[in-house]
Amino acid sequence: MKNGVVECTVCHSKLLSPSAKTISRAYDKRRNRFSSKAQALNFLLVVGDCFLVGLQPILVYMSKVDGGFKFSPISVNFLTEVAKVLFAIIMLIFQARRQKVGEKPLLSISTFVQAARNNVLLAVPALLYAINNYLKFIMQLYFNPATVKMLSNLKVLVIAILLKMIMRRRFSIIQWEALALLLIGISVNQLRSLPEGTTAMGLPVTTIAYIYTLIFVTVPSFASVYNEYALKSQFETSIYLQNLFLYGYGAIFNFLGIVGTAIVKGSSSFNILEGHSKATMLLIFNNAAQGILSSFFFKYADTILKKYSSTVATIFTGIASAALFGHTLTMNFMLGISIVFISMHQVT
Amino acid sequence: MKNGVVECTVCHSKLLSPSAKTISRAYDKRRNRFSSKAQALNFLLVVGDCFLVGLQPILVYMSKVDGGFKFSPISVNFLTEVAKVLFAIIMLIFQARRQKVGEKPLLSISTFVQAARNNVLLAVPALLYAINNYLKFIMQLYFNPATVKMLSNLKVLVIAILLKMIMRRRFSIIQWEALALLLIGISVNQLRSLPEGTTAMGLPVTTIAYIYTLIFVTVPSFASVYNEYALKSQFETSIYLQNLFLYGYGAIFNFLGIVGTAIVKGSSSFNILEGHSKATMLLIFNNAAQGILSSFFFKYADTILKKYSSTVATIFTGIASAALFGHTLTMNFMLGISIVFISMHQVT
Repeated sequence: MKNGVVECTVCHSKLLSPSAKTISRAYDKRRNRFSSKAQALNFLLVVGDCFLVGLQPILVYMSKVDGGFKFSPISVNFLTEVAKVLFAIIMLIFQARRQKVGEKPLLSISTFVQAARNNVLLAVPALLYAINNYLKFIMQLYFNPATVKMLSNLKVLVIAILLKMIMRRRFSIIQWEALALLLIGISVNQLRSLPEGTTAMGLPVTTIAYIYTLIFVTVPSFASVYNEYALKSQFETSIYLQNLFLYGYGAIFNFLGIVGTAIVKGSSSFNILEGHSKATMLLIFNNAAQGILSSFFFKYADTILKKYSSTVATIFTGIASAALFGHTLTMNFMLGISIVFISMHQVT
Repeated sequence: MKNGVVECTVCHSKLLSPSAKTISRAYDKRRNRFSSKAQALNFLLVVGDCFLVGLQPILVYMSKVDGGFKFSPISVNFLTEVAKVLFAIIMLIFQARRQKVGEKPLLSISTFVQAARNNVLLAVPALLYAINNYLKFIMQLYFNPATVKMLSNLKVLVIAILLKMIMRRRFSIIQWEALALLLIGISVNQLRSLPEGTTAMGLPVTTIAYIYTLIFVTVPSFASVYNEYALKSQFETSIYLQNLFLYGYGAIFNFLGIVGTAIVKGSSSFNILEGHSKATMLLIFNNAAQGILSSFFFKYADTILKKYSSTVATIFTGIASAALFGHTLTMNFMLGISIVFISMHQVT
């Protein structure tokens, strides 16, 4: 033990002895994750996430008409934000009804104004998410999706670096390795979808494409980590109220985006409800529910757990579709999920 | 701390506190590996191994006449054993000359007889290695080599289990995971060489083939671990003398195999020197040197380090051939070696 740091003889991690607490308040809250109540919540979050992510391909299939989509993809983002706002309002009303006598009223104007002032930081992730949603379309025009998918796995490491910088989180060497393993595991699983001659050294990507990819990797990572920071730093504000602000800002930014597009390209893209059906509405509600759930991840767990949850969801979808449609599981899939499971064990 | 066991808060490994020593004498000797002198020896062993393994493909290329081999492959095993015996005798003479006055003479008949009696266990790995060399030929007749290669990666785990049983070695959970990662890393690197439709669940292998593979995986693993056990349990016997016995037995068993084959198939396969050239002799000497080096691994380090050394050698050969012949490194290779390096860091 040196300067309050102990070394584990097995993994050589430098462990901080409990006396040396220089970690931020937000990080302290995160430590709740090891309590049994927090673990139960984490479990429910992951199960819910897997369910919603699993529904997605079914709803996408149902939304297709003659093998394609009739609606404008840009409208989906805006409608999703609106659905999230509705969700948040409904939940807020439910929570307000269950309030006990003497508690500060949730639906009063003074509460709302004070919370809005305190949570103004949520505009930052909202703007970043809106930019990200727009970037996704641009990226699809410029790149081979398989290459983008592979490079976007780097998000895990970017998120960890941002958590270290913004949330002052500490990761042991073994935890950094676990995160690297998650990235590698997901990549191994995706390898089969890469075209044959694709190599690590000579990816068919130009310099400008690298810059786009850098933005594509850092913008959503920064959005998630900053979202976690903003939600946790105003821990006492109700999450439903925080959601209302976050998605309110989101709806505004997306609406501005649509108006901007309409001005540039002409008014035809302004009809946001064109081509939608019951199935596409379900798809939008599913997207919205995933968004709401992710704010629970950020506030009560963390961005890393959200990342693992998405990976577990992909794994379950893979296994379920193999079982349902009689696919055989590929070697890549088996090796990939083995790496992910080892990573999950080592990160906690 | 409970019953002399401490838990690491990062990797959750159960660490044995120094007071609870129930580990075998042979395992205690292994702990030397952490001293700086032992680390230097380990480094030299790995460098030597990489050099010899790297030479192999060049010598194989030089040994080919008109794109094929003219010599009987069975004869190579026997000649390699003979070369190892010669090596051991030469080294023994060198060591005997450098003996100080008063030391027990190395070349006396009484030393030899006593050592031979003490090291009779070395006949076990010698027999197993001879069986293994024979099995290799049979396996090549029955299987797709890519499938065999993939399945034979399981050796790492079999070796660990045998080390636990025979050498009473303890592995922490993180070390088991590191070994699993080594296996996965090697497999990811090999994936590209697997034919397209090969799947984990439906490997094109029959039941009888599974039994053969089981033998193919366990026999050499058992040979190596038992070799480690036999070499370490007579730690005071000179390693050159131990090598002399080990390879002496090996030469005898291989010779019996050749005689047996000659009786069954006719005397044509009895001409062991047929088709050999200077290049094939160099190849045989390289094989012999690798064998001698591996006995140093087993006695002064362990079977696990030998396994890692082989993997590092493969990685360096891959990088060198990419640099020399202008190949691009595949994504599989990059992901595979990343996993192997993380595994190497976690196993120590």
